[in-house]
Amino acid sequence: MSEQKTRPEDTAKAICALDLVKGLPSGVKAHVISLARVDVLPGGVSVLTQGAQAQRAYAVLVGAVRIRQIGSDGAQALMRMIAPGEMFGTVALFTEGYYPADAETAMPSHIASWSKADFLALTMNHPQIAINIIGMVGQRLANVQNRLREMATQSAEQRIAHALLMLVEQSGAVQAETGVICVPLRRRDVAELAGTTLHTASRVLTAWEKAGLLARSRQMLAVRDASRLRRIAQGELS
Amino acid sequence: MSEQKTRPEDTAKAICALDLVKGLPSGVKAHVISLARVDVLPGGVSVLTQGAQAQRAYAVLVGAVRIRQIGSDGAQALMRMIAPGEMFGTVALFTEGYYPADAETAMPSHIASWSKADFLALTMNHPQIAINIIGMVGQRLANVQNRLREMATQSAEQRIAHALLMLVEQSGAVQAETGVICVPLRRRDVAELAGTTLHTASRVLTAWEKAGLLARSRQMLAVRDASRLRRIAQGELS
Repeated sequence: MSEQKTRPEDTAKAICALDLVKGLPSGVKAHVISLARVDVLPGGVSVLTQGAQAQRAYAVLVGAVRIRQIGSDGAQALMRMIAPGEMFGTVALFTEGYYPADAETAMPSHIASWSKADFLALTMNHPQIAINIIGMVGQRLANVQNRLREMATQSAEQRIAHALLMLVEQSGAVQAETGVICVPLRRRDVAELAGTTLHTASRVLTAWEKAGLLARSRQMLAVRDASRLRRIAQGELS
Repeated sequence: MSEQKTRPEDTAKAICALDLVKGLPSGVKAHVISLARVDVLPGGVSVLTQGAQAQRAYAVLVGAVRIRQIGSDGAQALMRMIAPGEMFGTVALFTEGYYPADAETAMPSHIASWSKADFLALTMNHPQIAINIIGMVGQRLANVQNRLREMATQSAEQRIAHALLMLVEQSGAVQAETGVICVPLRRRDVAELAGTTLHTASRVLTAWEKAGLLARSRQMLAVRDASRLRRIAQGELS
C-alpha cells in the first residue's frame, strides 16, 4: 500500500522494546518477532473495526493510530492516540472477542500484529507475557480513570492542557524534551480527547497560540511552554 | 470488628464464583480458597489507601466497596462501586506497585484477599489465572472508556441514567429483576459516578422520584421503571 519498506533489524528492535516482552529471555523474544506480521500503511487507513470479531493483536512500531469509539447513541469520540511502542486491539482477544473501537492510522505507520491463536499460545506458554499484558492494560485503565476524574472535576482548559501533556509524554523522550507532538492533530481530535466542544477547543488553542504556549505548523503541534501548560493543568493558572 | 461470622462453605462458594478462577480445575480452586484471608467488616471502614504500596489483591464476597480517587489537584471522585463477585486492588500488584485509589466498605461486607507473593505465584503457575485477570481488567477498561465517552457526549440526565443502570446490572440477577440497588447510595455518590454536580444530581433524582421512575428508602434506591430509564440513557427521552 506504500513504497516505504521496513528493515528487519528495525522491526526486531522495535518489537524487543515493547512492554509485551519485558523480562523475557532473548529466545522467546526472537520467537515473538518471528510470529509478527508487519504492515506498512499510509495515513488514514482503517486497521480494525469496532464490533468486528477480534482476530489479531497490534502494536505501533512507527507512526500513530487513532482509536475512536461510537456509542449506542451514535455519538463518536476519540478515545486515545496510540504512539510507537504501544499496543492496541489486544484485550478483545481475552474478553468477549469483539473490538470495542475503530483504529485507523493517523499518519504513515508500521504496524506489527499477531494472530489470536499465536497470541493466546504465547500467553499460555509464557506467563510473564500474560503478566506484562496485565501491567499494560492496568496502566491504560489508570490513565482512563484519571481522565474520567478530570472530566468530572476540571475545567475545559485544564482538560485540554492534560490531553496535550499526555500526548507529549506518549510521543517519547526526544519529543518530550522539545515538546513537539509529532502526530497530525486536528482541533476536533483535541476537543474529543479533552471531552469538550470543537468551539471551546478552538477558542482555547487559539488563545494559547497567541500567548506563545503553542505553535502549529503542517498539523504538527509544538508545546513551547510546558511548565506553564502544567500549571494550567493543575488549575494554578487559567 | 463485627460479630457477624462467615461460614467456610459460603466463602468457598463465593470464591469459586469469581472470574479469577474461571476454567480452572477444582484442585487449583481449592488452593486459591486455602490461600485467601476473609475479613468481616462493618460499613464505612477503609480497606486500602491511595498511594500505599500494594500488598494484597481483594474480592468482595458480600456487601459493597466504594473506590474513590483524589487527583493531584485535590479533587476527589467516586470511581466505582465494587459489587459481590468483583475484585479490586489487583492491578497495582502488576504495575508500579501503589494503589491508585482509596477503597472503603459502603455497607457491612465480607472481603477476601490474597498476599502479593501468593497472588503473583498463582498467576505464574497457572497462566489461565493471568488470562482471567486480563479479561477482568479489560472489562473494567471497556466500562471506564464507555463512561468517558458518555461524559464527552451526553447530558447529565443521560449520564445519571447510565450510572444507575450500571449499578442495577452490577448488583446481580435477582436485583436486576426487581431493579433494587442494594447499596447505600448517597446523592453525592450518584453525582460523582455520573460526573455532575451534587445540585444537578439532586434535581434529577428528585424529578425522577416524583415521576415514579425511582423510589428511595433507608438509602436504598429502587428503579421502578428500568425501560424508561434506558430510554433516557439512550437520549430518546428526557
